[in-house]
Amino acid sequence: MNKNRRKFTKNMGMASAYGLIMPQVMYASTKPKMMDKTAMTRPKILFFDVNETLLDLTQMKKVVGEVLHGNEELLSLWFSTMLHYSLVTTASGRYEHFGHIGAAALQMVAANHDISLSKDNAREVVLNSLRGLPAHPEVHSALQQLKDHGYTMVSFTNSSNEGVRKQFESANLTQFFDARLSVEDVGKFKPFKETYAWGAKKMGIQPKDAMLIAAHGWDVAGANWAGWRSAFIKRPGKQQFPLAPTSEIMASDLQKVADVLVSFR
Amino acid sequence: MNKNRRKFTKNMGMASAYGLIMPQVMYASTKPKMMDKTAMTRPKILFFDVNETLLDLTQMKKVVGEVLHGNEELLSLWFSTMLHYSLVTTASGRYEHFGHIGAAALQMVAANHDISLSKDNAREVVLNSLRGLPAHPEVHSALQQLKDHGYTMVSFTNSSNEGVRKQFESANLTQFFDARLSVEDVGKFKPFKETYAWGAKKMGIQPKDAMLIAAHGWDVAGANWAGWRSAFIKRPGKQQFPLAPTSEIMASDLQKVADVLVSFR
Repeated sequence: MNKNRRKFTKNMGMASAYGLIMPQVMYASTKPKMMDKTAMTRPKILFFDVNETLLDLTQMKKVVGEVLHGNEELLSLWFSTMLHYSLVTTASGRYEHFGHIGAAALQMVAANHDISLSKDNAREVVLNSLRGLPAHPEVHSALQQLKDHGYTMVSFTNSSNEGVRKQFESANLTQFFDARLSVEDVGKFKPFKETYAWGAKKMGIQPKDAMLIAAHGWDVAGANWAGWRSAFIKRPGKQQFPLAPTSEIMASDLQKVADVLVSFR
Repeated sequence: MNKNRRKFTKNMGMASAYGLIMPQVMYASTKPKMMDKTAMTRPKILFFDVNETLLDLTQMKKVVGEVLHGNEELLSLWFSTMLHYSLVTTASGRYEHFGHIGAAALQMVAANHDISLSKDNAREVVLNSLRGLPAHPEVHSALQQLKDHGYTMVSFTNSSNEGVRKQFESANLTQFFDARLSVEDVGKFKPFKETYAWGAKKMGIQPKDAMLIAAHGWDVAGANWAGWRSAFIKRPGKQQFPLAPTSEIMASDLQKVADVLVSFR
């Protein structure tokens, strides 16, 4: 058994203890990513995605369902449409607030089901809902653990500056973060590579010293391709993008990600 | 009644005769777009989007539904996910064939419903389905009418060069087009503004002399923002993006768009 193989075996034991869901690439690669020297080293700064990663979107299902006359199952289609059109906007060299794009997406999904929804009404529904989302149950204790272990933590979101400020107030998350970054200040939504470059530069670090923690396949894909490290929270309904590199940590909630991160030196 | 107002009234009669669905902006603006001198002038080249615009995707509902164990309603979510990840790929400075992104998106949607789908199986399903789509019923006669009236016509698609060649052979559309453009040659998916700029340059015309005909809100939005003219085919389930300028022509099928275009001088 060579050195890498021994480390791999030891690590698999640790992973199992943490209840980690290991990415498939772990089994296919001769040199598992978590065994890599860099991967066992602490990232200088942890960047946290916000919507779905820290905040629980499921209560929006009911609100969106009411607007769409009971079609709660359209929440996924609405969210996917919002994400698609955020990139449509950036790809066209434009910028609009994420909430406004979400409202426009809701108008489109509604119209496709013969439901007329005014711009003002759609914005009220989307902004009020997004800004009052609760944190996932494990988030407060996991963030506290990471803070206690000396990590510098930054939020990094597609939501506007005002939006994330209100979201954090409502969910009682403000105190955990050393800075709040919004793509509003760079004018391009994640996962545009320029946005990750801006985020790392803004915090005064190299891309390789940044780690993104997110529950979206597209976000960790963008971070990985931008030279960042990443941890993927595999919440229900979330998948990594099969055509992108997998994240070095993959686990079912933030506590399990934190348990790995505090073991890094 | 001033001159513009008279022209507007006359045009509304014509629009009504054609059974056009007029964009809302027509009623709000003092100078309706179709009355604009430019708008009544022939575009030098008509660029046609392909999937959903010329080809009917509804038969894929059954195939995708079978893969997803009867969940036919997931077709929209799959297509939206494919479009989102096509832009994720370009935003990250990468390129993958549209069909491969579609297959990856199908794997993700399947995995979210506890259905395991291999990469090869997903690619087989998506490529075979996309490449065998039939044309919408009015497409052949509408394209023939536009050709008979002397229009130069070009297809302009997110599908790969090989993909669109096979799609056109299968749907018997090859003979209508003076050129086939695929985003594969520029390496960025629509609606990246560089892609429209490339398309116009490739055909040797200015953006203002190009008109895109498409059934996707994001595609006509991107074209409009790139300085092109556009016609939106409002097929079932399709909406323009409320935050983008509306198209100068909006109608429920390609025949109705063609009826307007042949009246241009």
